[in-house]
Amino acid sequence: MSGFLDPKFQTLEAYTPGEQPRDMQYIKLNTNESPYPPAPRVVQALTREQGQLLRLYPDPTGQALKERLARLYGVAAENVFLGNGSDEILNFAFLAYGAKGVVFPDISYGFYQVYADLYGLERESIPLKEDFSLDCRDYCGKGKLVVIANPNAPTGMAVSPEQIRQILLSNPDAVVLIDEAYVDFGGETCLPLIREYPNLLVVRTFSKSRCLAGGRLGYAFAQPELIRDLEKLKYSTNPYNINRLTLALGQATVDADEYYRDICEKIVESRRWTAGQLEALGFQVLPSQANFLFARSQAVDGEALYQQLKKRGILVRHFTAPRICQYNRITIGTQAQMEAFLDAVKEILTGGAL
Amino acid sequence: MSGFLDPKFQTLEAYTPGEQPRDMQYIKLNTNESPYPPAPRVVQALTREQGQLLRLYPDPTGQALKERLARLYGVAAENVFLGNGSDEILNFAFLAYGAKGVVFPDISYGFYQVYADLYGLERESIPLKEDFSLDCRDYCGKGKLVVIANPNAPTGMAVSPEQIRQILLSNPDAVVLIDEAYVDFGGETCLPLIREYPNLLVVRTFSKSRCLAGGRLGYAFAQPELIRDLEKLKYSTNPYNINRLTLALGQATVDADEYYRDICEKIVESRRWTAGQLEALGFQVLPSQANFLFARSQAVDGEALYQQLKKRGILVRHFTAPRICQYNRITIGTQAQMEAFLDAVKEILTGGAL
Repeated sequence: MSGFLDPKFQTLEAYTPGEQPRDMQYIKLNTNESPYPPAPRVVQALTREQGQLLRLYPDPTGQALKERLARLYGVAAENVFLGNGSDEILNFAFLAYGAKGVVFPDISYGFYQVYADLYGLERESIPLKEDFSLDCRDYCGKGKLVVIANPNAPTGMAVSPEQIRQILLSNPDAVVLIDEAYVDFGGETCLPLIREYPNLLVVRTFSKSRCLAGGRLGYAFAQPELIRDLEKLKYSTNPYNINRLTLALGQATVDADEYYRDICEKIVESRRWTAGQLEALGFQVLPSQANFLFARSQAVDGEALYQQLKKRGILVRHFTAPRICQYNRITIGTQAQMEAFLDAVKEILTGGAL
Repeated sequence: MSGFLDPKFQTLEAYTPGEQPRDMQYIKLNTNESPYPPAPRVVQALTREQGQLLRLYPDPTGQALKERLARLYGVAAENVFLGNGSDEILNFAFLAYGAKGVVFPDISYGFYQVYADLYGLERESIPLKEDFSLDCRDYCGKGKLVVIANPNAPTGMAVSPEQIRQILLSNPDAVVLIDEAYVDFGGETCLPLIREYPNLLVVRTFSKSRCLAGGRLGYAFAQPELIRDLEKLKYSTNPYNINRLTLALGQATVDADEYYRDICEKIVESRRWTAGQLEALGFQVLPSQANFLFARSQAVDGEALYQQLKKRGILVRHFTAPRICQYNRITIGTQAQMEAFLDAVKEILTGGAL
């Protein structure tokens, strides 16, 4: 850092995104992207006319997309916020609601602690149970911003909306942020609870189940008061946060909802198959409701497995935190990719030469 | 705002973007967009293949675009930062460098004070001189973040790099941010000064001269230490801040540089013509080096002129701050648009019926 940077950022450790190596073509099972392209009508939304219109600013309100999302999910447009990826929404939420402190599980999306540190928020990290399940009672009566990924990452494990309800009820003076980035792969959404709880913020993304990680589009649901808070911060940082093409792609994506539900089913099916195969090979596989598996081998060290897979052209995500360093997070790709992955795993387990 | 929002944001007044009414088709001379579409090769960059690849995250480093910009502007890639519009870069810069306070002219881009208030920074607003020129001596020896739009908005008036040099020399412990959003329409860039001054940050955008307001792409030049500061904040808020398509559009834009230089010449020519016509109608027109004019009529109140133009289907930007409420900011459109604008002005001046 330069000598000019505010010293409070000296110890800030930025988030490290999954590696994007360019030395060769990998089977990329490391950043939870979809193996399937966007729906044909989404790709077709990139018209020459849209290109010409790029000279004009996008609609900063995103109203047309908000209305489409509202219709699809049975809420009103004023219950919807749009962000440049869900990361931007998380960023706004920490800034808006974190002053009394923030609490999240010890094993979760690594960015939560970065946001907390960026804004100098007091943060409390609550250990997941031994089996990586989350005990909602640990988050009751905290009186500070509660952040829970549901399903959680990198474990893939989910809690029920009824458990979340207890957290909402017992923290009436604090916002409870439920990060549903992975909810479309088998989790149960908390969305209906926004009618009852003014402190609930449900955050979603088009990056995973909507095959649009490259488009950068996140959204959130809450009662209108919370949405207006987030809008205030957006209009105080970057009012045109979502570009024209992404707004158009988002609309086409909502219109193609059936395509994406089919894709999610395929991924759930491949997840089930892959988990079974890994278990047959002696892996311990956490029960995942997401588009990835979190698994450890009894026979091979987690880091070594990651390295061996990489040498074979397959990228998975390995974390170094002590509790999870024996695991790898494996994004569910196409069935063919998962077969290639398992072939490589078998080769590694049997000590096959590279 | 909700009862949950951090009370420090209670008095924050968000930025108000130029109006984007949808009640009818206007001649839009209110948000300094380009009247010309992006270069053909830029529009052609929106391929079916790019659409398919949207399932994958963009390159968070933006390295390919950085290298192209570096080559075009004669710097190294490590001198370049990329943002989701220049607004995002301004946001990071205020967060990074504003702790000792920030100083900017009383009449300038209205967002500067929003960023300062968002982060609770002590801000000093220095009045421009009576003729709206900027006296660089006012910014010397401040020892806090200095922010100057050059050319300035909404005046369009520019200062020379030699004047900026004095500010840089006399503030060795503070960052001097030169916002060059409008530099391609006749201003003189401070870019060469980054070699000499580690405290200089030059911020640019593709929104104005590069006809890409809808794509959201800003960039900045500085010595590598400042760039690394900004990268640290980016990786602590939104690593994938620029979507895949915008990165591709940016590269195609750099490759089509000649197209854009031609467009800038056209706009400068229309600006000269429009200014002459307005002066002939008794307007006072500030000497603009930007893609807009800031002008007042001796005969018609500024707010009334704005309203009368709007009724005639022409949008300009009117500000209510006391020093400038008699002026309107008029984006330079195509020659045909400027002729329509002047016809409307003449009609209003002669009291013609609506």
